Amino acid sequence: LAGLQTEEPNHVSLLLAAPETRFEADTEHLLRRHWGDTRNEAVARPQGPLKGNTSPICGAKASEVLGFKYRSWQSSQPVGSGHQQRRSFSSVSTVSSFRCGDVTLSNGRILEDAELVYEVHGKPNETNSNLVLHPTSFGATHDDLGYRIGPGSEYTLDTDKYCVVVVNMLANGVSSSPYRGYGECYKRISGLSHWPYPSIYDNVLLQARLLEDVFGLSVIGSSDGHTGSSPLALVFGYSMGAMQAYQFAALYPNAVQRLAVVCGAARTSPYNKVFLKSLMTALKTDAHWLEEEERFTGHPMRGLKAFGTIYAGWGLSEEFYRNEEFKQHGSFESLNHFLDDYVDGFTDLDPHNLLAMLATWYGFELALPSEGCYGWPALGAVTSDTLLMPCSSDRYFPVTDSEQELKHLTSARSARLRPIPSTWGHRAGDPHRQGQEAQATFIRNKVHALLKDEDLRDHLGGHLVK
Amino acid sequence: LAGLQTEEPNHVSLLLAAPETRFEADTEHLLRRHWGDTRNEAVARPQGPLKGNTSPICGAKASEVLGFKYRSWQSSQPVGSGHQQRRSFSSVSTVSSFRCGDVTLSNGRILEDAELVYEVHGKPNETNSNLVLHPTSFGATHDDLGYRIGPGSEYTLDTDKYCVVVVNMLANGVSSSPYRGYGECYKRISGLSHWPYPSIYDNVLLQARLLEDVFGLSVIGSSDGHTGSSPLALVFGYSMGAMQAYQFAALYPNAVQRLAVVCGAARTSPYNKVFLKSLMTALKTDAHWLEEEERFTGHPMRGLKAFGTIYAGWGLSEEFYRNEEFKQHGSFESLNHFLDDYVDGFTDLDPHNLLAMLATWYGFELALPSEGCYGWPALGAVTSDTLLMPCSSDRYFPVTDSEQELKHLTSARSARLRPIPSTWGHRAGDPHRQGQEAQATFIRNKVHALLKDEDLRDHLGGHLVK
Repeated sequence: LAGLQTEEPNHVSLLLAAPETRFEADTEHLLRRHWGDTRNEAVARPQGPLKGNTSPICGAKASEVLGFKYRSWQSSQPVGSGHQQRRSFSSVSTVSSFRCGDVTLSNGRILEDAELVYEVHGKPNETNSNLVLHPTSFGATHDDLGYRIGPGSEYTLDTDKYCVVVVNMLANGVSSSPYRGYGECYKRISGLSHWPYPSIYDNVLLQARLLEDVFGLSVIGSSDGHTGSSPLALVFGYSMGAMQAYQFAALYPNAVQRLAVVCGAARTSPYNKVFLKSLMTALKTDAHWLEEEERFTGHPMRGLKAFGTIYAGWGLSEEFYRNEEFKQHGSFESLNHFLDDYVDGFTDLDPHNLLAMLATWYGFELALPSEGCYGWPALGAVTSDTLLMPCSSDRYFPVTDSEQELKHLTSARSARLRPIPSTWGHRAGDPHRQGQEAQATFIRNKVHALLKDEDLRDHLGGHLVK
Repeated sequence: LAGLQTEEPNHVSLLLAAPETRFEADTEHLLRRHWGDTRNEAVARPQGPLKGNTSPICGAKASEVLGFKYRSWQSSQPVGSGHQQRRSFSSVSTVSSFRCGDVTLSNGRILEDAELVYEVHGKPNETNSNLVLHPTSFGATHDDLGYRIGPGSEYTLDTDKYCVVVVNMLANGVSSSPYRGYGECYKRISGLSHWPYPSIYDNVLLQARLLEDVFGLSVIGSSDGHTGSSPLALVFGYSMGAMQAYQFAALYPNAVQRLAVVCGAARTSPYNKVFLKSLMTALKTDAHWLEEEERFTGHPMRGLKAFGTIYAGWGLSEEFYRNEEFKQHGSFESLNHFLDDYVDGFTDLDPHNLLAMLATWYGFELALPSEGCYGWPALGAVTSDTLLMPCSSDRYFPVTDSEQELKHLTSARSARLRPIPSTWGHRAGDPHRQGQEAQATFIRNKVHALLKDEDLRDHLGGHLVK
């Protein structure tokens, strides 16, 4: 924050600078939380082109103008790193790093010096019965997920009641990744051939270790039915986060009380793979891609623009575009304006991380390797109270797939399918943008009902065991 | 055709070589037509990897092995060129060129030495009342459209009854195009900045001149209601061909008796534009694209592969992929095999022509410039008996849009919406592949009913004027 003297003696203009995030940084909301609702009127809202997906000031510009330096995840020594006994958290969120050493992945390759960076919101209670696990989605970091989490019932994940652990997915640029760092600091590897390609399953194994080592939870031991501690109150995930949530609940059924799958699936479907193939192929079309060394020799701006343009055709529904809803929300005057903004959301991302995450996504299928059980049949292992929330117009995680999954959730204490009624397609499950209020409310209410053990019976002929 | 002596004295092995086409050349069918159905058993069907979208022998290979030289559209002097009086056609198909001189387009630019290449199947009758106009679709040439046309009621367009005029769309590589020719002969322009970008409307103006000059039809004069000759029995188009058909019927209502719109629309919708943008952006991502000169400096194989991969996600439906229908049709063992084949359908095409055709597509909106009337309202000018046949699962020409169009066809003598029930998405309207028999039959029967003035009343509350 920088204070500037203005002409009016009783007024001080403030500039807020935040590190770049992929999505809109909810600046206005942060200001309100900082000063309280009493000063609502004093908060200037971003106008015009600043609406939508951009922060009022990007990190790079703030660095240049204000001389700010951002914390680098690579060079810092975050509090709470490594294998250690349970520690205490304040109610304010804390970002920490969990170092796992060299890890042998399920494909046999080694992820050296594996590290999960995670953020903890709120405080665990005495019995750990209020813990919520929330893995990140494609291209998102813990920062991007904060909008759902906070004190009070207006948040989907209420930190007055729950302690929310947001874990960065491997390859997202914050946890171990091909190219890693915030701001200017990167750890370079010499090509994606050196990246060992962890799976969703590998992510979940490390998350279990984190919960055991840091929070003292009994997760891994729980798989044989004996656990001394409370299960997680909820595992909540959106998109690739939902894949991790599904995998966690199937692998550690006794460690998961409730499961919320938002715009996700138990496997990457053939149609979804066609989408991912088009993204990968377009990105690698860039002249900077060096096929022999599996790396980019420079920032592939053209490839990333193609990437973002393709995404725009899949991330939202036909109806959204037909109704020109982009004109209703934010300040987009035209389709081109909207698409330019959409594409801008991708052009700063590291292309190696994108390819690595896409590979994890492409290869996903729910896995119980010790039982030789994969895909939909592995859903039979889930015992949690389960809530499936695809979006009614999601193109690559269609409701049809969730309906199939519901049929395979034969051991779930309860399971229900509650499609988000929306034209926002896959984006409906990530409702942090202007115009997504109805979707945010819908998801929040369904998750609150899940947490209160309400709304158990499914309207599609689902089952209720307990 | 090349005859090879084999071990068996009573057998001769034959190789059929055909010029490259984008789609499967229906070799087996051509052989049967040549020898008649009595020799069915003798026709060897292509096996294994030759099934699907490939010709048994591609033109390039045939050139190399057999020493064949293909006719070049550029260097040849086709019969029937230029502004001339009506001439007679044999019942066998004839390909001709119609030279229009320098043409001022509706955007004010000049298309120099404009030329439409067209194929005529069958013979016009005395009063020209049996003429059918059939414009080509994106990436297709007259060769690709032949499968619907032939003698007998098994064909959608029966040349025993009708004289079918297939007109190549500008920029398709056969009519005037940025890069033009068959086989090795190309007329190079020095970049797309020199291409004047004709619209669908411009195409239709030239088609009208062709029908007047070559067939003696009264088309342009018909717009004020006075015409001395019969109207076209039918204008039939698929996809971009359907756009041209719509435009023709709206601009020259008195010259069109019937209109069949297959997987098309009266405007390019915002969602459709997102698809086209992703294709254009991905193609231009290739290192061979020289932005300043708006041209490719070499064949953009990477860009074309990205192009084809993106197309695969739009051209067929989610359900098609979910059901893995690619395994049911042709010989595709896996998703990757299917996608590779899909992509191969694009890698030989000229990228400049693709960009030029995409621009025509992107900019389309039904136009009646003299009345200042554009888009859906211009549908009010159509008086033909009209048949709209979107595919039930088409992603970018959805049934919803056809429903809107139906409401605007207020002056049509009759109008009905008959969605093709299929999981094949946009491809359903171009049913020349293995496994598309049901779609081909559906379209044929509906078009035959249209030509017999049957099935007039629409089930969605459409209207019947006559």
